[in-house]
Amino acid sequence: MAKGITVGKWIWYPDDFEIELSARFMLRRFERDVPIPPFWKQYSCWRNVKFTKKAKLDEPETLFVTAEGIFNVTVDGAYVYDADGKYELTAGEHEVVISVAAEKGLPAVKADGNVFATDGSYLVTCNDHNYMPAAFNDCLVYGDSTPNNVKLPEKVCEPVRTLKKGNTMIYDFGRELFARVRLLGAKKGQIAKIYYGESEEEAADFDCCELTAKLEIAGDVAETDNCQAFRFLAVKGASFNSVQALSEYLPQPREATFYSSDSLLNKIFDVSKYTLSLTTREFIIDGIKRDRWVWSGDAYQGYLMDYYCFFDKDAARRTMLGMFGREPFDLHLNHIMDYTFYWIMGFCDYYRYTGDKEFTLRNLSKAVSALEYCISRTDESGLMKGLDGDWVFIDWADNLDNTGEVSFENMLYCISLGMLGELLRSFGKEEEAVRYETLRARVAEKLEKFWDEEKGAYIHSFKDGVPDGKIFRYANIFAIIYDLCSPERQKRIVDCVLKSDKVQAITTPYMRFYELAALMKAGETEYVLDEIRDYWGGMLGEGATTFWETYDRRQKGDEKYAMYGRRYGKSLCHTWGASPLYLLGRYVAGLQPADCGKSFVLEPKLAGLDFLEYSLPFGDGEITLRVKNGGIKVLSTAMSGTLVWNGKRYRVEAGRELNLATVPTGKEYAVQYENV
Amino acid sequence: MAKGITVGKWIWYPDDFEIELSARFMLRRFERDVPIPPFWKQYSCWRNVKFTKKAKLDEPETLFVTAEGIFNVTVDGAYVYDADGKYELTAGEHEVVISVAAEKGLPAVKADGNVFATDGSYLVTCNDHNYMPAAFNDCLVYGDSTPNNVKLPEKVCEPVRTLKKGNTMIYDFGRELFARVRLLGAKKGQIAKIYYGESEEEAADFDCCELTAKLEIAGDVAETDNCQAFRFLAVKGASFNSVQALSEYLPQPREATFYSSDSLLNKIFDVSKYTLSLTTREFIIDGIKRDRWVWSGDAYQGYLMDYYCFFDKDAARRTMLGMFGREPFDLHLNHIMDYTFYWIMGFCDYYRYTGDKEFTLRNLSKAVSALEYCISRTDESGLMKGLDGDWVFIDWADNLDNTGEVSFENMLYCISLGMLGELLRSFGKEEEAVRYETLRARVAEKLEKFWDEEKGAYIHSFKDGVPDGKIFRYANIFAIIYDLCSPERQKRIVDCVLKSDKVQAITTPYMRFYELAALMKAGETEYVLDEIRDYWGGMLGEGATTFWETYDRRQKGDEKYAMYGRRYGKSLCHTWGASPLYLLGRYVAGLQPADCGKSFVLEPKLAGLDFLEYSLPFGDGEITLRVKNGGIKVLSTAMSGTLVWNGKRYRVEAGRELNLATVPTGKEYAVQYENV
Repeated sequence: MAKGITVGKWIWYPDDFEIELSARFMLRRFERDVPIPPFWKQYSCWRNVKFTKKAKLDEPETLFVTAEGIFNVTVDGAYVYDADGKYELTAGEHEVVISVAAEKGLPAVKADGNVFATDGSYLVTCNDHNYMPAAFNDCLVYGDSTPNNVKLPEKVCEPVRTLKKGNTMIYDFGRELFARVRLLGAKKGQIAKIYYGESEEEAADFDCCELTAKLEIAGDVAETDNCQAFRFLAVKGASFNSVQALSEYLPQPREATFYSSDSLLNKIFDVSKYTLSLTTREFIIDGIKRDRWVWSGDAYQGYLMDYYCFFDKDAARRTMLGMFGREPFDLHLNHIMDYTFYWIMGFCDYYRYTGDKEFTLRNLSKAVSALEYCISRTDESGLMKGLDGDWVFIDWADNLDNTGEVSFENMLYCISLGMLGELLRSFGKEEEAVRYETLRARVAEKLEKFWDEEKGAYIHSFKDGVPDGKIFRYANIFAIIYDLCSPERQKRIVDCVLKSDKVQAITTPYMRFYELAALMKAGETEYVLDEIRDYWGGMLGEGATTFWETYDRRQKGDEKYAMYGRRYGKSLCHTWGASPLYLLGRYVAGLQPADCGKSFVLEPKLAGLDFLEYSLPFGDGEITLRVKNGGIKVLSTAMSGTLVWNGKRYRVEAGRELNLATVPTGKEYAVQYENV
Repeated sequence: MAKGITVGKWIWYPDDFEIELSARFMLRRFERDVPIPPFWKQYSCWRNVKFTKKAKLDEPETLFVTAEGIFNVTVDGAYVYDADGKYELTAGEHEVVISVAAEKGLPAVKADGNVFATDGSYLVTCNDHNYMPAAFNDCLVYGDSTPNNVKLPEKVCEPVRTLKKGNTMIYDFGRELFARVRLLGAKKGQIAKIYYGESEEEAADFDCCELTAKLEIAGDVAETDNCQAFRFLAVKGASFNSVQALSEYLPQPREATFYSSDSLLNKIFDVSKYTLSLTTREFIIDGIKRDRWVWSGDAYQGYLMDYYCFFDKDAARRTMLGMFGREPFDLHLNHIMDYTFYWIMGFCDYYRYTGDKEFTLRNLSKAVSALEYCISRTDESGLMKGLDGDWVFIDWADNLDNTGEVSFENMLYCISLGMLGELLRSFGKEEEAVRYETLRARVAEKLEKFWDEEKGAYIHSFKDGVPDGKIFRYANIFAIIYDLCSPERQKRIVDCVLKSDKVQAITTPYMRFYELAALMKAGETEYVLDEIRDYWGGMLGEGATTFWETYDRRQKGDEKYAMYGRRYGKSLCHTWGASPLYLLGRYVAGLQPADCGKSFVLEPKLAGLDFLEYSLPFGDGEITLRVKNGGIKVLSTAMSGTLVWNGKRYRVEAGRELNLATVPTGKEYAVQYENV
């Protein structure tokens, strides 16, 4: 390549990379050897697109073009024949148009050159007369990765020990991995059968383990194609010298660190972080063994954890785009009514946390069309009710009849109207904002019919105009978190519902996420920390190296791993298992974005912790707080914000440590602590 | 395979085969070595679909499943592991569900078995809650062809002669082909450069010929991948023993035959048929050298020719579906306003000619959404006017300013409203029918403002309420063909416009098609036959083996082949060049469908021909007429209909020859004729 040449970015039509990547990624779920594609619609990219750029060259330039798909280049309107990908541009004004079409996969192009090297300054059209800035992705498409062949990096892991179960050797890699399997020194021509286990029991149970693979040995080194979730492996049908795991990971340049006087909480934080690091991949998925899919309800919690752990904006964006697909919006996401609302809420949150105008404006119509779809399906009283084909879900729980007007769903509807109205207003879209604000007010009013003053709770549903009188936690939790009622009423809910044994307990970490958040918001920090120590500490006690889809300390033996009627059906590495990341970040550090991601408010609540050093990536920088003995130090590297401490507000200047006392560093504290 | 097993059909989600096939097919256009993808949107199939069938088995059955894409099978709700594509079903009731998902291309499945062998009795969903009968295609997907790899059969052709141009050997295959090139005995490692020519001049002009290819010689037999249009070839850069053409063709089980006392007309008919046989492939395209695309305006004429030549319904269906893509309809087809109307008209015609209820009903919403798109773009006076991005085309002609309200476009609008209204009515869709009929009447009324009584013609356009006063043939032709005005007015148009030298002549066979049809309809059969002899006979005089995109007898030498400013830009095998097929079938045989394809009317007009034996596939059978000396014999093998002869109506019974005189067969006539 010529000296001084600029290497171009791979560029494509906006959203299409995520749509294609998602469609491929979602096909990697297996049950034993059986692939399980998702049961909702999957979209495709546009197949033929056109990139264009006009610029004036001070000196001649050679453009080296490669594409995924067939392509042609016109320079100033003329095709260049026999170019073999090399185009000479003279000094002066030029218009370069690159048409790319792919029989299969995403049409994308990369041109190395100088001024005309590909980047976001190219415009692109899907041939619908509209042009917009070309998209690229620096997080996934670099090095050996191309747009149609994204390869996350891998590291080689060796088993930390082997154990014998009967005649079978089980290889233990020490902790949960998402990895391919490599056999070394195996005999050519053999077919190895691999049994994966998140638990030792699973890997040893050849008939019931959730994942199996066949590996045809073609040489001295044989590797499976598809990553799977496992800590333990058994291999049959082949003799070999050794086995390795090629552990695939998404590099995270930044991550939160939590070090406190409570070593159990520290461990819970670290394992939560490792859990989220495994489920945040091309997309934020539910679990790495199962479902390996993007579910909107899981993703919504994933975004919130991400903002308090990696602040990986691109992972959130990819997940929103890949899941949404393409307008028109004509089916609930994942077929679930709640999940459409979570998408809208996640989209609005994204702007609140990041202030990313470009992404938000470009995709605003998606949120609007999702919400308009919901509005178009309200009943005669203007409330959401499950229609044919709608899955009204809420949670896995007994006795939940979600027919009719369900308070929980209508709260999500009300929240979505409010959040999207606010977002539209912040972009100056007055008319649409007013539409949603007005609707929100109307829905909020109608929610009153669910309030049972006597019981101090929102009831579950109305069917044919008749209240069912049943109380569940869900709606009541959301009324607190999203301020759908007065502080007085919120207090009553805490007493009458959240702290009541009479109301059916939540058993899933999915809704537990919101329940603990509501309790945190209601000021029950110590209570929640104890719950975290109990529930997540319980999993650690079971030897968990990542947090599970669900946990019940009463379950023993194999029962622990069973779910959905399958002996090892439970996922042992599940995004929502990592919720302490959010609970600690949002309510112990007390960090919240302000002014659409341009600022922050920090209101730490130590809740009995003697010492805390907590560092969180936020925006483009990092916020670190250190607390001990009522003293606090705060350093925000890139963003100014506000500290609320002992009821007083302090300005935190970007790059200048706010020092409200002498506080040791984590290292100093550890030394003191160990010396005690 | 077990004895007595039924080989399943490849099945898929309706439309998706055509959409995928089209998206691949449309990427095969080249200019020299440069691929030219279309400049309109291309759609994709759904990526994950689910097939399902319930049936009761009297005896056990083994199902052998193969898929394009990944797949799983549930039998009675349970996954079958380690199946390797083989599923055992016991006697009794079963529900089989096959989920298929493709990372790339069309998800499709084929199951051999017995009762559960795949066919149209399976239902399929794209996971949007709706199920419809699975689609298959017996015309293209059989033998070695799979849904994602359709291969038309090929026959080997040898050059009929070689000629030397300077140092270059030109291989002449005797007539136009659409073929791959095979070199025999070439030396491995060489790279042959192939120059294609529809004319001898083109193949010999290495710098300007429209198509070139590189062929890397890897063995004794080397073949190009991509078919190209040519009659002549030159090959440089490699030594070889011989060259062959692998001529790809779409098998047509039926075809019209025309034998008359006019041998020039006979030849014109045969060359027209050969032309259409080359342009009717996976789709009915414009031309095989260029553009190799589906253009709605060209396709509309192609359907009409097809009904009078091959009666290949599937080619028409494939073309309509592949071109349409997927709803919502949000851009004019090929970006051209006229072309959206032609799609609607072609769709309505299809039902008129074939009576194919299943296809028509399933795709009715496409026609409706296309028309609604147009309606949504009418101006304040309810007429169509080109908006931003609309290409208002009509024809290649000088002095055509298509801004404002153009009479031609609004006639197409009026015709579409009328045809679709009628179609909806025939399916009992009263309300929609009334809507379009009412609109049609309103538009017809508004068309009156274009009529210039003095000039006896419809003027071209209104701009800002002001008539431009210009007369072109187009609108006036359509007013005749589609009966948009009274017979008296039609007569005036013939005199004042069609037969007037003062109105700009039509130079393209594209609009010539309609002009000659209008003249035929106006009773000018002999005049039109003379025109055919002159224009098409002229091309034959130039040595044409297929009919051209355009022809002007005044052009000599290289000028003949030039177009679009390119020396060999003209396509020498163009669908619309085959229009004698329609003109002769529709107006000389005088064949028209009646009663939505269930019957026919035959009203032959010999126009000076001494003898005619004309056989046309129609519906499921064939209609043959023989005429001489005012006597006629008609045989319709499968459909009863009506003969109009000398002003009288006769019933033609299916399978019984109607004999109104002694008429020789073509063979007998030939003997008599030759003896004269």
